[in-house]
Amino acid sequence: MSRPHPQALIVFCHPEPHSFNGAMKDVAVKTLQRQGYSLEVSDLHAEGFDPVEGAAHYPERAELATFFPLTEQRHAFESGTLPADVQREIERLERADLVILQFPLWWHAQPAMLKGWFDRVFVYGGLYSGRMRYDRGRFPEKRVMLSVTTGAPAPTFTRHGRSGHIVALLWPIHYSLYYLGVSVLPPQVTYGVQGGGLSYEAEATFRQRLEAEKAAWAQRLEGLDNEAPISFAGWDDWDEQGMLKAGHPDFWQL
Amino acid sequence: MSRPHPQALIVFCHPEPHSFNGAMKDVAVKTLQRQGYSLEVSDLHAEGFDPVEGAAHYPERAELATFFPLTEQRHAFESGTLPADVQREIERLERADLVILQFPLWWHAQPAMLKGWFDRVFVYGGLYSGRMRYDRGRFPEKRVMLSVTTGAPAPTFTRHGRSGHIVALLWPIHYSLYYLGVSVLPPQVTYGVQGGGLSYEAEATFRQRLEAEKAAWAQRLEGLDNEAPISFAGWDDWDEQGMLKAGHPDFWQL
Repeated sequence: MSRPHPQALIVFCHPEPHSFNGAMKDVAVKTLQRQGYSLEVSDLHAEGFDPVEGAAHYPERAELATFFPLTEQRHAFESGTLPADVQREIERLERADLVILQFPLWWHAQPAMLKGWFDRVFVYGGLYSGRMRYDRGRFPEKRVMLSVTTGAPAPTFTRHGRSGHIVALLWPIHYSLYYLGVSVLPPQVTYGVQGGGLSYEAEATFRQRLEAEKAAWAQRLEGLDNEAPISFAGWDDWDEQGMLKAGHPDFWQL
Repeated sequence: MSRPHPQALIVFCHPEPHSFNGAMKDVAVKTLQRQGYSLEVSDLHAEGFDPVEGAAHYPERAELATFFPLTEQRHAFESGTLPADVQREIERLERADLVILQFPLWWHAQPAMLKGWFDRVFVYGGLYSGRMRYDRGRFPEKRVMLSVTTGAPAPTFTRHGRSGHIVALLWPIHYSLYYLGVSVLPPQVTYGVQGGGLSYEAEATFRQRLEAEKAAWAQRLEGLDNEAPISFAGWDDWDEQGMLKAGHPDFWQL
């Protein structure tokens, strides 16, 4: 571990605590605690996080006539009037050396609840700005990782699979993380997680596989400190138009 | 137009009615009406749409012990107990020949509000199922199109641009539409839309460009009936494992 008393934050997004996503979150909590981490959990559904960015969150507006989200985010950050839930999530983020986002893939992306956590918590003028992005971002020391479940089985998420290449589906979410300047660890993807008797497998096979997935997750977390992040471009790689300079490695490896 | 009295639905997602997104929505309403369309607008923020899928929406549960979203969606659809807002949005969708989703790209995807419209309105067992997906989907006659604004300028959204390839960023959203079986028209992307004085250009240049963007949008909408949808794979293209059969065209054109 990089620090003597490392801190982890798990952002958990599932409406059902007894879901497989809930179990994966519990595995992470236990395993990381055993590794010496202090743990915090943002349980977005249990805490009733409001995912909708809008004027209602900004009673002290910088610009009254028109609501410009970025203008109000920056103003609220600078004047210390951020909404309490956003302030709390930023503080949790700031404390964390390692962040795990645990969620099911719904409609080819994060559920709205977690998407709104991005929309509201990644505050313009506070967590990023035109100058403070990518490898000049706010959080160069943090490591962030997605732990995702899918409904459909693994082969359909390959390069030419029917469900769409998982690398491409997670790519926009990873991009948001690159933007913040964190190190992004390869995602943990658990395929074929269908609750409520909708599984593609016989019930016993399904349960057995999920137990094995939990064990594999625990094992991976035990060795996480030795993992290397996904490579990504930085300011030295781009020209003045914001395009990759000739000869620079192509980080867009879909 | 394919029908004598065609119907269009605009799903508008921006917290500020006087935003550029609002203006693009207004252009679409006026232009399509002039083309003979009947218009409906789902104004998600104004109507206070709840984007969070969860147990609270299902007072009459199929499964009490554990909340399985798909199980409850199917049960509510079949028993006629869908939440009123979801029922309303489905009816709007069903009436529409053309659907336009008007939104700003926030954190590399739709805002949470619109993502939740996908999560809650695209009801399992009603709008799709294992058998009713892709080219066997529920809505083969509908045409759907994204109209998106970005903050950063156009060159950064090219193949190797700093902001990420726009085709790849919109790809997961398009995938959700392919899943429903609709025809997806190429997106309308308006780059470099920064409100509140954050624009990359001088104010006058910026305003002038936005006027030109609105005019181009109106012009495109006038010829929309002649546009061909984006090609996408279907069941005949996939093998039993859900992977593209050898020799079939690669529709994953990133």
